[in-house]
Amino acid sequence: METRRKFVQKGLLGIAAAGLAGRAFGSTKPEHGKDSSVAKGVNFDLAIAGYSFVKFGLDDSLAMMKRMDVRYLCIKDFHLPLTATDAEIAAFHKKLADSGVTGYAVGPIYMAKSKDEIDRGFEYAKRVGVKLVVGIPSRENLPYISEKVKEYDMQYAIHNHGPEDKLYPNATTVFEAVKNLDERMGLCFDMGHNARDGHDSIKDVERYHQRIFDIHLKNVTSPTADGKTCELGRGVIDIPRFVKTLSKVGYQGKCSLEFEKDMSDPLAGLAESKGYFQGVVDSLS
Amino acid sequence: METRRKFVQKGLLGIAAAGLAGRAFGSTKPEHGKDSSVAKGVNFDLAIAGYSFVKFGLDDSLAMMKRMDVRYLCIKDFHLPLTATDAEIAAFHKKLADSGVTGYAVGPIYMAKSKDEIDRGFEYAKRVGVKLVVGIPSRENLPYISEKVKEYDMQYAIHNHGPEDKLYPNATTVFEAVKNLDERMGLCFDMGHNARDGHDSIKDVERYHQRIFDIHLKNVTSPTADGKTCELGRGVIDIPRFVKTLSKVGYQGKCSLEFEKDMSDPLAGLAESKGYFQGVVDSLS
Repeated sequence: METRRKFVQKGLLGIAAAGLAGRAFGSTKPEHGKDSSVAKGVNFDLAIAGYSFVKFGLDDSLAMMKRMDVRYLCIKDFHLPLTATDAEIAAFHKKLADSGVTGYAVGPIYMAKSKDEIDRGFEYAKRVGVKLVVGIPSRENLPYISEKVKEYDMQYAIHNHGPEDKLYPNATTVFEAVKNLDERMGLCFDMGHNARDGHDSIKDVERYHQRIFDIHLKNVTSPTADGKTCELGRGVIDIPRFVKTLSKVGYQGKCSLEFEKDMSDPLAGLAESKGYFQGVVDSLS
Repeated sequence: METRRKFVQKGLLGIAAAGLAGRAFGSTKPEHGKDSSVAKGVNFDLAIAGYSFVKFGLDDSLAMMKRMDVRYLCIKDFHLPLTATDAEIAAFHKKLADSGVTGYAVGPIYMAKSKDEIDRGFEYAKRVGVKLVVGIPSRENLPYISEKVKEYDMQYAIHNHGPEDKLYPNATTVFEAVKNLDERMGLCFDMGHNARDGHDSIKDVERYHQRIFDIHLKNVTSPTADGKTCELGRGVIDIPRFVKTLSKVGYQGKCSLEFEKDMSDPLAGLAESKGYFQGVVDSLS
């Protein structure tokens, strides 16, 4: 009987290689796809976007992650405030490590009001020890942030938030805003909000992948403004084709599940979504 | 954006076509696989084996099924006793229908002690209105049961239960016991217990598929007696290859999740497993 635990094994290898919050970018792992359209050198680390746990403290959140065997977390400020001391940050990382979890990025952090917010966000990321900031900045401060990513040698990923978002409704608006700035300026691609804004999230991976540093992995019930987040396999976005496309373009970041349904009791929907993603990855591997 | 809801749509179509507990065998649905090794005419209806809910009453069980959007249940006696009256059976079916669930089979029913137990089991199945009985009979009564399946025009599926089971530890023992009996005598293939007994559950699908009428879909931590049930994507059985093989041989029955881990709190593991199966099916479709 062939043993097939690619998804899990990769998680274990990832943890072994990662150290404490020191691995913002996935290692290149060759995938020998049976489908010749699937490129090699793909990293499919599954993560959880911290916002999925907005109604839970860190202990409960980590217990859910452990139950699901998900090893990466994008850190939200309600779990680790921007004002945390270095000792508090160390205690936070220890708690994550005790659950086999690595915090790989911070955000989304709102920093549209002032340069002070931007300064504070980058200092926070530095103290947390990650190399990726997910943020929502004003457009006029983008050149300032482009200098910051040089200074800190970090990636900065702007989060697109759908038709209600006047600044960054979709991937195209973010790409157009950053394409002439430092190449560390890019996108935290919320594929669900992008779809809700009427855009093709699979084509947009092909178009903008060089600036996609993080993904909010989700599906939605409709490709319209009234579309709601649903379990990953139950929505309008073709996830197997999405994952194949990530593979084809050689995406190296995390796929960070953001589940905005049943937020007071998210475990079943998160677990179903995690299983779906793993089933797709294992089938295409 | 392409809409891809094959798995869900099939469930909806299945429900629409099924009526009340009247559909023991899947309808033939053409699948246009991108992988040419995947045959057409495959049915991948996901079900839950009632034993997964051994610690829960019917209402709680149906609530979990509704949450997971799983539409078929193999009925266990703790949810519907063999002594149930016709009125109680009707009320049971109504409750299932109100949750969008169809009971597609009964069992496993232990009937190894006497012919009376066998008689009672077949009468129960007839009154419940299903055409598939999952059972554990004695070997000496197999010819008697072979007459029963003719009389009732039902399928009878013997459940294999691993190395601790002296009668039917694996698929091979069941197949050898029924191969010369009526062709409605077959196997409820517990792929996990078969693996725990050191057998190759994928090869056994190829060998015995003509007598496989039901599947206890699961994975195990080790292909040895001490292997435990785990979430579908976390075990030693290669589920994508298993599903491809089901497809290749044209399996027409249900795939009935049996989750024997966290039995006091099974929803997360069931949901992860359901998602995994759906991700595999959608990727191979």
